[in-house]
Amino acid sequence: MIMTKEKEMSVTPWEVSSGDGKIDYEKLVKDFGTTLLNEKIVKKLSKCHPLLRRGIYFSHRDFDKWLDAHEKGKKVSVITGRGPSEKMHLGHLVPFFVALSLQKEFGCEVFIPISDDEKFFVKDNLSYEKSLEYARDNILDLIALGFDEKKTFIFEDFVYTNIYTYAARIAKKITYSTAKAAFGLKPENNIGWSFYPAMQAAHILFPQFYRGKHLSVVPVGIDQDPFIRLTRDVAEMKEFNLDKPAALHAKFIPSLSGGAKMSSSDSLGNNLIYLSDSAKEVETKIKKYAFSGGRDTLEEHRKKGGNPDVDVSFQYLKMLFENDDSKLQKIHDDYKSGRLLSGELKMILIEKVNAFLKEHQKKREEAKKKIDKFVLKN
Amino acid sequence: MIMTKEKEMSVTPWEVSSGDGKIDYEKLVKDFGTTLLNEKIVKKLSKCHPLLRRGIYFSHRDFDKWLDAHEKGKKVSVITGRGPSEKMHLGHLVPFFVALSLQKEFGCEVFIPISDDEKFFVKDNLSYEKSLEYARDNILDLIALGFDEKKTFIFEDFVYTNIYTYAARIAKKITYSTAKAAFGLKPENNIGWSFYPAMQAAHILFPQFYRGKHLSVVPVGIDQDPFIRLTRDVAEMKEFNLDKPAALHAKFIPSLSGGAKMSSSDSLGNNLIYLSDSAKEVETKIKKYAFSGGRDTLEEHRKKGGNPDVDVSFQYLKMLFENDDSKLQKIHDDYKSGRLLSGELKMILIEKVNAFLKEHQKKREEAKKKIDKFVLKN
Repeated sequence: MIMTKEKEMSVTPWEVSSGDGKIDYEKLVKDFGTTLLNEKIVKKLSKCHPLLRRGIYFSHRDFDKWLDAHEKGKKVSVITGRGPSEKMHLGHLVPFFVALSLQKEFGCEVFIPISDDEKFFVKDNLSYEKSLEYARDNILDLIALGFDEKKTFIFEDFVYTNIYTYAARIAKKITYSTAKAAFGLKPENNIGWSFYPAMQAAHILFPQFYRGKHLSVVPVGIDQDPFIRLTRDVAEMKEFNLDKPAALHAKFIPSLSGGAKMSSSDSLGNNLIYLSDSAKEVETKIKKYAFSGGRDTLEEHRKKGGNPDVDVSFQYLKMLFENDDSKLQKIHDDYKSGRLLSGELKMILIEKVNAFLKEHQKKREEAKKKIDKFVLKN
Repeated sequence: MIMTKEKEMSVTPWEVSSGDGKIDYEKLVKDFGTTLLNEKIVKKLSKCHPLLRRGIYFSHRDFDKWLDAHEKGKKVSVITGRGPSEKMHLGHLVPFFVALSLQKEFGCEVFIPISDDEKFFVKDNLSYEKSLEYARDNILDLIALGFDEKKTFIFEDFVYTNIYTYAARIAKKITYSTAKAAFGLKPENNIGWSFYPAMQAAHILFPQFYRGKHLSVVPVGIDQDPFIRLTRDVAEMKEFNLDKPAALHAKFIPSLSGGAKMSSSDSLGNNLIYLSDSAKEVETKIKKYAFSGGRDTLEEHRKKGGNPDVDVSFQYLKMLFENDDSKLQKIHDDYKSGRLLSGELKMILIEKVNAFLKEHQKKREEAKKKIDKFVLKN
């Protein structure tokens, strides 16, 4: 746990909070012992997704080595997973946009573990059947993003149960004490939960178990880094002799209402745009809930301008929906100068989101026919 | 843990000891809350293996219901497993002789989980590859015993990995605290070990997961009853709604040298007869190590007679190798009266064991061709 001053900031895999609502990312990098993405790296990502080239992914472990390995013609891959406990919302797509972008730019394989078991263990009211159902539902959304069917491997723990043989080998090397410390396990948690750290490490190392030793990168929220660290320790053990997985760390994507981390755990869904939302729902949610950096009155806004840095609509355009740097810059400048009003900015986002979702929902239907090409079987 | 007086007797799944070398089985039945096998039940087992009709299996849970169910034409089954961490010895066969006998007498299905994962988690120096190797080795010995290929299902956790889906559902219902108490888990144990209680319960309930709700009996050493109890609690939960598994409890089978429990953990193998032993090895081991109830001198033996109750050779004949009651009685009487000498008694056992092993080793070779008929695949 990283704590600064008097409970000012707390960033753990289970809690992200700070007294003043701001996260000191440079301090996190220092405390976690990761490395900031430097210009040299970002330059190599200039054709990649905005998330990678606009500073949302800001820190890494060994991603320079990953890029070097690729340049030398060595095999590299991406691994990023999904715990299916609900319908997917925009925030869930962040690491998958990155994985997809790296696949397109570097031609690499992408591995996507679906941890239906984790969600089943952790969520009291989630039944086994329901966790399988969400897994299938979420897999369709992932396929719809446009991954290459020849280079993408999706596997569900409760379906591709052979993952247990890898998790077991890792489990033998992790004591309950270690897992307890790294994952915050409590005695009243169930024993599936106790075992899950091994399963998660098996997910992260799976590309190497499946394809042999090579560098694999995990795009992940910075708060999840402790798990990467544990897995890197495991990878090096003589029983495995694998490459330590690289990591790309993201800042937190704000929720629609401006909360530090986009998550459905503390909302009723109003705060989130689901991939299944209708155009009307999107419009209503953004108009009603999107935190605005605009001024209180039209007059004041025209005069003093808005603040794009805290405006969630602008942030979503920057992070996810406006790929064109000059267009984004214009929106930024117009908003800051007061030429662009909050309502107008919101409409730009609404149109972008709805264009994306319309296409996504169509592709999701098509994905139903392609599912067998992506999903690993025992 | 059952403790009487000052550490006089301790019987837990991990320790069997008593101050005077004797186990008070009636006290165990009382303390564990199980039921002695009564005459009515034993009568119904009159054609079964000596282990069942000569008081070695002496206690039970719901086995009367199991017999009733069978009489009423309802489905019943037997489940007994093997943790493969070494070559098999005679002691390992005890529950399988019982399972085989129940299959022959009652025509029921037999389920045999091979917990290669458990042994891998628990034994520091057992590699993953080696645990798979022992599993395959042990499976051959089990098939060689003569189980019905149409009614017997052998499954290895690391091969029939779908067992994970059942274990996971059970794991969700067992807290780490509960598992810790029931299985003596320590914080320094690995997290595979923490998870294993769920896997074990999945094994015991597997006949019902696989074939639907029915009464299944587990032949087991009385020291293992705490695991049965835990699984019976799980079976009844609304998520599963299964029959509580019945149990048949065995006394401890003495080691060759007369120790309370036949086990390879505290010997170098001299104390045990392995199924792969040659006729010569068997002869040497029994002559050299089998604890004798005979007198110190020939003269004294002829005069006072031997003690068959503590003589391991006689006990092995009684428990495992002399099916004919009148022949056994004659050996008993002759030994007790002094007509039969220790060396002669040992020769009777040696011949019986070697006849069994000669046949067993032949059938084991034949089993190699039949393995696919017995082993469950995902």
